Amino acid sequence: MAGKGDAARAVVTGGAGAIGSLLVGSLLRSGAEVTVVDNLSSGRLENLGELRHHPRFRFVEADLLRPEMIRPSFEGATEVWHLAANPDIRRGTEDPRLDLEQGTLATFHVLEAMRAHGVKRIRFSSSSVVYGFPEKFPTPEDYGPLLPQSQYAAGKLGSEALISAFAHSYGMQGILYRFANIIGPGMTHGVLYDFFMKLKRDPRRLEVLGDGRQAKGYLLADDCVEGMRFVADRMTAPVDAFNLGPVDRIPVSEIAKKVVEAHGGTARIEYTGGERGWVGDVPQQLLATEKVRALGWSPRHTSAEAVDRAIRYLADEFGP
Amino acid sequence: MAGKGDAARAVVTGGAGAIGSLLVGSLLRSGAEVTVVDNLSSGRLENLGELRHHPRFRFVEADLLRPEMIRPSFEGATEVWHLAANPDIRRGTEDPRLDLEQGTLATFHVLEAMRAHGVKRIRFSSSSVVYGFPEKFPTPEDYGPLLPQSQYAAGKLGSEALISAFAHSYGMQGILYRFANIIGPGMTHGVLYDFFMKLKRDPRRLEVLGDGRQAKGYLLADDCVEGMRFVADRMTAPVDAFNLGPVDRIPVSEIAKKVVEAHGGTARIEYTGGERGWVGDVPQQLLATEKVRALGWSPRHTSAEAVDRAIRYLADEFGP
Repeated sequence: MAGKGDAARAVVTGGAGAIGSLLVGSLLRSGAEVTVVDNLSSGRLENLGELRHHPRFRFVEADLLRPEMIRPSFEGATEVWHLAANPDIRRGTEDPRLDLEQGTLATFHVLEAMRAHGVKRIRFSSSSVVYGFPEKFPTPEDYGPLLPQSQYAAGKLGSEALISAFAHSYGMQGILYRFANIIGPGMTHGVLYDFFMKLKRDPRRLEVLGDGRQAKGYLLADDCVEGMRFVADRMTAPVDAFNLGPVDRIPVSEIAKKVVEAHGGTARIEYTGGERGWVGDVPQQLLATEKVRALGWSPRHTSAEAVDRAIRYLADEFGP
Repeated sequence: MAGKGDAARAVVTGGAGAIGSLLVGSLLRSGAEVTVVDNLSSGRLENLGELRHHPRFRFVEADLLRPEMIRPSFEGATEVWHLAANPDIRRGTEDPRLDLEQGTLATFHVLEAMRAHGVKRIRFSSSSVVYGFPEKFPTPEDYGPLLPQSQYAAGKLGSEALISAFAHSYGMQGILYRFANIIGPGMTHGVLYDFFMKLKRDPRRLEVLGDGRQAKGYLLADDCVEGMRFVADRMTAPVDAFNLGPVDRIPVSEIAKKVVEAHGGTARIEYTGGERGWVGDVPQQLLATEKVRALGWSPRHTSAEAVDRAIRYLADEFGP
């Protein structure tokens, strides 16, 4: 198994992102060599901090849409963690080519680079959005039909499909992690980040898209990385999907209150109304986590605890 | 609803193929205007026969990978039947770019052409292969997780994902038909066609890939077209998936016997052995059909009847 015995040689796409940079730290601490491939379109070098100077760390600034540029980075690798993606679901609705390219096509080029160099293991950051707007909560991995509501979600499902096909056709192993909302340091999008940005522009009021009753599961990025590695050390199937999320969910209205409180408690919360915040949003999300629990892993925090911690990170990043 | 009241103006991609040409005939008989967009890579003009001279028929030879060439054909359309695809699953394993392009990317360009011209309805020929190698038979539409075994299957699932995202994001309506094995006149691939080709080359022996126990459902293309139109006239959801297949399945060994019999009964049947015929094959397939039955439609033939009829078509096409 990778990471046991011989040291792993890992490629992390999107390794300069909020989740990727934490994964890079975790892999380096386990003795792995790590090559980050990132085009810095949303990732930031400062997320990696001191890790950049680690002797087993290498950074390649390259776009996954340019196969000839990325291919050499996969030579000699023993595992690939494919996390690169467009992080902004709403932008994908304005320009559907974005998620086709940064989602499905980027994954295809990663898989072809792996095939060219005989790299067999791929671990992919998929998402709960592949379930569309499910009729069943908590939503298990065997839920169907999968009817995505956004271009971002279509890119995730298209990527899952390619990984499964490559695993079966060419003897690879693929892990499809279906994430809840992941929060933590270094975020550049998502509801918490949006709220802090809005209060920075106008500290007197906080506009909340929708009626505030949208409720989702939030997982700290640290917990997420731990769960990913736990599953990767144990899974034996050619390809399988695992939900990674907390046991509970929390409504947007509660998050808004927490953010306002952290911000001095004076801002007025205003709801735009409606069931959904925006086109492509999945207003309700709660993942069944029995499958990963059966392997032996549970997240350390509830959604509310995760949000509290993430708010502290953001308060630091946004400054006083 | 399309096809009732005002005449439909339909675009049929892959309309020169074995299924597409039958659909074109059906639509023309209902009074629709029909534009076929086909690059003739596997479709053949002779499949369309006399339909080509119909006053409401138009043929556009164009490749779906060239968006600027296909876009004008969608102007004024009221519905799109997207059937174009690489029909050869095995070729996709040799060159994974084939199904990425002819599957997922072609679907993307069709959807973008529709969006450009405000065309709202898309009906897509998906496939039972999206279920991968399911653990449940008959396999219902809500089966999961969807873990495709071939690049062809990944292209179908990637296309389904895009259609769902466009339907939800831009107010379109998408129907995902998940076909059993479709057989009939004008076939250029598939087990029956392969058997006839093999006997043409060597009438003394018929090599069968696998152990002959692979068993699937076979649906006549005429029945398939009828089912597609039946569902299209009734479905109201923004997007949904429907299995289209027979109630039973038939083993490859039985098909081999039927073909040999139709061929004079003297050829020796030889099995190569193994559970699967080839990499990417799904050796067992039986679709649950309760969902389309609940709408009021059932196929007219069993798998065995469909195979018998298709053998007669092929015997005619291959000649004495």
